[in-house]
Amino acid sequence: MTQAAPKPKESLQESLQQVQRLLARHKLVEGLVHKQDMPKHDLVESLVHKQNLVELEQKLAQQHPADIAFILESLPPEDRLLVWGLIHTEVEGDVLLEVSDAVRESLLADMDREEILAAAEHLDTDELADLAPDLPQDVMHALIGGLEEEERAELQSALSYGDDQVGSLMDFDMVTIRDDVTLEVVLRYLRRFDELPHHCDKLFVVDNDQRLKGVLAIKKLLVSDPELEVAAAMAREVVSFNPDDDAGEAALAFERYDLISAPVVDSTNKVIGRLTVDMMVDVIREETDAEVLSLGGLKEEEDLFSSVWESAKNRWPWLAVNICTAFLASRVIGAFEHTIEALVALAALMPIVSGIGGNTGTQTVTLVVRGLALGQINASSARRLIAKEHAIALLNGVVWGGVLGFIAFLLYRDVHLGIVMAAAMILNLQVAAFVGLIVPLTMSKFGRDPAYGSSVFLTAATDSMGFFIFLGLATIFLL
Amino acid sequence: MTQAAPKPKESLQESLQQVQRLLARHKLVEGLVHKQDMPKHDLVESLVHKQNLVELEQKLAQQHPADIAFILESLPPEDRLLVWGLIHTEVEGDVLLEVSDAVRESLLADMDREEILAAAEHLDTDELADLAPDLPQDVMHALIGGLEEEERAELQSALSYGDDQVGSLMDFDMVTIRDDVTLEVVLRYLRRFDELPHHCDKLFVVDNDQRLKGVLAIKKLLVSDPELEVAAAMAREVVSFNPDDDAGEAALAFERYDLISAPVVDSTNKVIGRLTVDMMVDVIREETDAEVLSLGGLKEEEDLFSSVWESAKNRWPWLAVNICTAFLASRVIGAFEHTIEALVALAALMPIVSGIGGNTGTQTVTLVVRGLALGQINASSARRLIAKEHAIALLNGVVWGGVLGFIAFLLYRDVHLGIVMAAAMILNLQVAAFVGLIVPLTMSKFGRDPAYGSSVFLTAATDSMGFFIFLGLATIFLL
Repeated sequence: MTQAAPKPKESLQESLQQVQRLLARHKLVEGLVHKQDMPKHDLVESLVHKQNLVELEQKLAQQHPADIAFILESLPPEDRLLVWGLIHTEVEGDVLLEVSDAVRESLLADMDREEILAAAEHLDTDELADLAPDLPQDVMHALIGGLEEEERAELQSALSYGDDQVGSLMDFDMVTIRDDVTLEVVLRYLRRFDELPHHCDKLFVVDNDQRLKGVLAIKKLLVSDPELEVAAAMAREVVSFNPDDDAGEAALAFERYDLISAPVVDSTNKVIGRLTVDMMVDVIREETDAEVLSLGGLKEEEDLFSSVWESAKNRWPWLAVNICTAFLASRVIGAFEHTIEALVALAALMPIVSGIGGNTGTQTVTLVVRGLALGQINASSARRLIAKEHAIALLNGVVWGGVLGFIAFLLYRDVHLGIVMAAAMILNLQVAAFVGLIVPLTMSKFGRDPAYGSSVFLTAATDSMGFFIFLGLATIFLL
Repeated sequence: MTQAAPKPKESLQESLQQVQRLLARHKLVEGLVHKQDMPKHDLVESLVHKQNLVELEQKLAQQHPADIAFILESLPPEDRLLVWGLIHTEVEGDVLLEVSDAVRESLLADMDREEILAAAEHLDTDELADLAPDLPQDVMHALIGGLEEEERAELQSALSYGDDQVGSLMDFDMVTIRDDVTLEVVLRYLRRFDELPHHCDKLFVVDNDQRLKGVLAIKKLLVSDPELEVAAAMAREVVSFNPDDDAGEAALAFERYDLISAPVVDSTNKVIGRLTVDMMVDVIREETDAEVLSLGGLKEEEDLFSSVWESAKNRWPWLAVNICTAFLASRVIGAFEHTIEALVALAALMPIVSGIGGNTGTQTVTLVVRGLALGQINASSARRLIAKEHAIALLNGVVWGGVLGFIAFLLYRDVHLGIVMAAAMILNLQVAAFVGLIVPLTMSKFGRDPAYGSSVFLTAATDSMGFFIFLGLATIFLL
């Protein structure tokens, strides 16, 4: 990714706006030509039209692949494909790695076999492995056929791990050295490289069987006496990972120990790859993204400009579940229709009970999900947390239930109604605390992601139980 | 932060559990001694009691400051303070930097002036600046008094920027070189350092006035011919930042260009500091955290084991707002009590209309907030997005409104009720799309954080308008 340096001073927004202006001008010209019924090949020849595209192409050639990816993501589909057609083949592979999954699909769908092969040619095996799930079968076969044996083994190894495992994120660009040479020898050895791997802040010290003995930090190499042996300068306590470790845990370790790179070793301590902080930043971004999206009721990241139909598919799974739970809550109310008929004020007050229950429960869910994600909740702290959340729910219930009960009394001049309101609030907040704790804790116990679906369960419970408690108490005490 | 190497194989969870076991044993012994009414000073002398604490202290001394921070965050207050008392003074400063804001407050509250001064002694000026907001005034004065003039200037500079500005995140540990020397000279110069700054992947090349001329990547230094001049080996296109740049934008640039460190320059291009990826990872984590927390209805990160009262204070601001909006929605229903009295089925159906409106609107808000955060929404794309979201809302309204209208008809055998239900759904989903778009876009236009409060506005609108539309239509067409 060294084709074009990132532009420091010209902001990305400006680049995007320039591209948008050039696209608008291009479309204007095309529209004018169209109106005059100029035949198609004259249009292509038309000087002004051509010049526009050349300018756009030049603009794009100056951009860093990550910036091109940003521009593509920010453009609606037809503009996106026009711009994509102007990108030079050498950077296409890097751009494909940078764009979001949804946009990558739309770009690949527009490329034929030869174009994909040409773009993939410039990629490393670990990068190929990242693209693999989105590539057509026959293209993958052709790509694997073109690899050398070692590369093929690397690709197969990378493909054999799940998305959430360290093995799928490691690369194979590492520098290994022996521990019985001097630093002077290491310096001379490094000078034979054309380029060191990206994010190379340490060299891996291995024995004859490639087993990890330690790491030599580049920082250390630079300040130490060149006569020193590697064994004397290297660190023996190394944070290393196994390929089947959880990617999220690895990212937390990178964050905690401020790592730039770390070796990946197999069960015999043999070095097989390397993790770098840039991949870990992506993991952190993706994990928190997934949390936000599932809290927002979306299945996955959505291309902002995807078709209405594509977007609807992303949103329907959660909507369908929500409609079922809303229907359930509605049937609970239906069961109390006689009560409401007798005292219609209940209809106006009941959404408050269910709504506030949902809100306080969501607060509990959010905290528990985060505590679980950071590993701060275990058996010994869970019991304490449960006691605390129920205590807060009681405090909230008494305070806010009291306030709302009093308001209900003022509105309808009915002391009993006020008391029922306050009591229902207190009870429903206990339900909210209970469900808000037990659902994520249980999901986590069974190895499921606690962020996913906890809030749906929660509002299903606080709605249905809120209506049931409030209308039930009203039926008993007010009729 | 090099006092103790991170333990690679022994997981953090195991360390935490060992500490918890030692604490439990300690409390058991203390409990037993207490029962026998042993006087206080005998207790302190008690061999077994002492041995327990020694074991715990040894265990903690082996931990990396980040791991100690994790353990402290995972312990309830009384255990936390006991453990904190056993931490060696040299690492206390580093641990304070690593713990969350809430836990830091609880630790500082337990320390006296001398302890804080001793802990702060081991910190760099940029680290001091991070702690400054939590330190008592007189401690800060004493600390500033103990600094050398240059350090004092650094600290004051770091303190003069807001939390969300690059200036508050930069450090001052950088290596600058001239461009007219050979790489050999640079290598010899570096060898005079005891230690290079952490995350040092590039040297900053400056002129006599400290103005940035380029950067020399360590990678490049290692592979190039030592006879080469710096000017020939350095990169001139540099991603640099200004101290008043937005921290989130800087983090996005680090992510996009896979940076490890970058220079911070003032308006005359003079190098004044350095940003490193570890700080940027913290920024990314904090920004997404803030998004998740405000979606979950919490003011800020909460210490899992803070007192009920502290927690309640964190949760009440949003609850209070929610209670107001719930009350408003309740008054809308109150205005239609006659309609509900006449047709009580409406009471059972109305929460479906408001609930599904809230859900679809939250999906829109989530996408718009993310698009804004990533800079992918601008004036030209906003119009397109508005059209798309309204189209999806129409599709959802017709499909799901139709389904629910049909169910309403089946339940109550009333064709008109079914039609009113479907129509209300279609209209309320349009309200949801409109509010879900306009609120975050407007907040962003006026420089506010769109994540904060958008969902409260949204549910206020979808609840009140949902009830109003549904009950209004029912009053007109069903009575």
